[in-house]
Amino acid sequence: MAVVRSVEYADASSEVRAVYDDIMATRKTDWVNNFWKALANDPVTLRRTWESIKQIMAPGALDPLTKEMVYVAVSVTNQCNYCIASHNAGARKRGMTDAMFHELMAVVGMANETNRLAAGYQVEIDDQFI
Amino acid sequence: MAVVRSVEYADASSEVRAVYDDIMATRKTDWVNNFWKALANDPVTLRRTWESIKQIMAPGALDPLTKEMVYVAVSVTNQCNYCIASHNAGARKRGMTDAMFHELMAVVGMANETNRLAAGYQVEIDDQFI
Amino acid sequence: MAVVRSVEYADASSEVRAVYDDIMATRKTDWVNNFWKALANDPVTLRRTWESIKQIMAPGALDPLTKEMVYVAVSVTNQCNYCIASHNAGARKRGMTDAMFHELMAVVGMANETNRLAAGYQVEIDDQFI
Amino acid sequence: MAVVRSVEYADASSEVRAVYDDIMATRKTDWVNNFWKALANDPVTLRRTWESIKQIMAPGALDPLTKEMVYVAVSVTNQCNYCIASHNAGARKRGMTDAMFHELMAVVGMANETNRLAAGYQVEIDDQFI
Amino acid sequence: MAVVRSVEYADASSEVRAVYDDIMATRKTDWVNNFWKALANDPVTLRRTWESIKQIMAPGALDPLTKEMVYVAVSVTNQCNYCIASHNAGARKRGMTDAMFHELMAVVGMANETNRLAAGYQVEIDDQFI
Amino acid sequence: MAVVRSVEYADASSEVRAVYDDIMATRKTDWVNNFWKALANDPVTLRRTWESIKQIMAPGALDPLTKEMVYVAVSVTNQCNYCIASHNAGARKRGMTDAMFHELMAVVGMANETNRLAAGYQVEIDDQFI
Repeated sequence: MAVVRSVEYADASSEVRAVYDDIMATRKTDWVNNFWKALANDPVTLRRTWESIKQIMAPGALDPLTKEMVYVAVSVTNQCNYCIASHNAGARKRGMTDAMFHELMAVVGMANETNRLAAGYQVEIDDQFI
Repeated sequence: MAVVRSVEYADASSEVRAVYDDIMATRKTDWVNNFWKALANDPVTLRRTWESIKQIMAPGALDPLTKEMVYVAVSVTNQCNYCIASHNAGARKRGMTDAMFHELMAVVGMANETNRLAAGYQVEIDDQFI
Repeated sequence: MAVVRSVEYADASSEVRAVYDDIMATRKTDWVNNFWKALANDPVTLRRTWESIKQIMAPGALDPLTKEMVYVAVSVTNQCNYCIASHNAGARKRGMTDAMFHELMAVVGMANETNRLAAGYQVEIDDQFI
Repeated sequence: MAVVRSVEYADASSEVRAVYDDIMATRKTDWVNNFWKALANDPVTLRRTWESIKQIMAPGALDPLTKEMVYVAVSVTNQCNYCIASHNAGARKRGMTDAMFHELMAVVGMANETNRLAAGYQVEIDDQFI
Repeated sequence: MAVVRSVEYADASSEVRAVYDDIMATRKTDWVNNFWKALANDPVTLRRTWESIKQIMAPGALDPLTKEMVYVAVSVTNQCNYCIASHNAGARKRGMTDAMFHELMAVVGMANETNRLAAGYQVEIDDQFI
Repeated sequence: MAVVRSVEYADASSEVRAVYDDIMATRKTDWVNNFWKALANDPVTLRRTWESIKQIMAPGALDPLTKEMVYVAVSVTNQCNYCIASHNAGARKRGMTDAMFHELMAVVGMANETNRLAAGYQVEIDDQFI
């Protein structure tokens, strides 16, 4: 009852298909992952979310691989299993090697540790950082 | 009573000074930030944490700037104000421009949003990601 | 070894049965969900938690549907899969339509995004909000 | 150095002013809060974030007051002080009474508690919720 | 406007005073901390929360000091500054030494790190743990 | 593709085997759990993480059982299912009874609740706690 149905291309409205087509064209793939098929139940959120991600993840001052690795870092911090799996795949596709993945995890782990040490020791922000 | 005292260089034991000296030498600075001065109340944790960070943040498969930006991404996700301030400064020092900071924030914000959409819609991991 | 056993009605003590009976009577159902069957291993926590939830989720200044949707919003933010599933079902039972669920997810996603933008940009609280 | 400067209306570019004008017109106020003045350092993110929030927070299947209260619930769960202050103010403006605020906090607190009880007891999702 | 007023003893209703009196008697102190003075705006939540905490934090299978240290561990993980300050004080009062505080922080930091390593490496639960 | 392979003892390099041997010797077991077999893909992180945990979890000012229970408290707060399962098992092995587990969960749940009440009511830190 509470489960969200996946909207497959064959069953999708033309407005949903337009987003699916743009996802596949932008990513140069021939399939759409489950995240979008779930969001497609709400075509307004589907379009807004896709347009935002497309703008944000495009090459800019940061390259797409760095952006995907940042996405993984946030998803790991939040324990979002779906997002870890999908953005790991995205980062791999853009060139993340095993060595890069290992260092990324080391940084994410350490940051989560020192975030708590800073809080627990109630460290005050240095004047030099203001 | 509950507040943690900062251990200044002048008052530090030789084992704490050795860590402070290594921090300043490694970072090519002449000061130590409050995080380490708080941890110095526990010299064992001070040394272990510094040795770990020194190893993790050194250049490797990922460059130091990318690592600092990942640190910022995690700290922002966890709402750790001290860590946001200190690692923003660290990333700036290693070359993060305004444009890079803006894109970093955009990715971090978006990842935090889609992490929750994936959870709320209970999206199943695609076979292609396994 | 580490797994928590479910306490079924047939095997429950009279004090646990009394809580189960009150849950079913209050909710007008003929079954008790796994959350309570797990807590029943600790009858003190079972009773306290049920009494608190019963008081908090009763109609008041906020209606029960709004309360269930807030519960979903928190559970999605925390990535608690059990709670997402159970409170989605609870909200549906109290009248949450597809359109309401979609808007709820959009707000939860956006709030998680702007929470991080506010932290990352280290925004100061406006005097007007104090 | 790491601190983000607020972009005041007088100093803003025409594209930033256009967003500020729309914020004030939409909200029927004569001022813009610090969140937007910080984001204005990145006009692309400013516009995208405002357009998204404007779409998401507009009246729909959920009324604006309910949406503001959900925003508060998420912000409290994430410990985002800025967002708690600003969305509390937003909810008050849309009619949240003291009694509603108190019940909102009670639900948010309880949800954060039972989210952890469900995790700690490793509760399995009931078939009825699937 | 959005700010919550503290309810001082002199201004409190008799039902609020009864809770304040019980807090001071239970804790053998002559003052009430700000948390309760804020909750006192909602006497129902004040009483329920106090009764729950009084029951939970009483000596039992775990001693009060261990309970206070667990409270600190959770508060540090959630970056709740108020709760870190108040429960650090509580733990100190019940006998937490500097050495204990330091080890507590080390465990909390490490757990936050390995929580993310487990997520990032998508580690499957061993059969021995089920 | 994105999945991390487990490094079994038979396939491990001598440096990885040295860590596995130390884990088994320290814990007096004849097997290594999946967390370490996943980290073994990055021998540097494997060794650093194991050395840190070995130092942190050793008996000291806090006994090993208390440390394992704090680990569970953090893991439950972060919703890390692997860590909940593994550290519950670790705590059981060191003597955590059912009654202790129940009280631990009650404290963790309550702390997560009051962390949010303190944030939502924007409670100021008492002078007595500074």
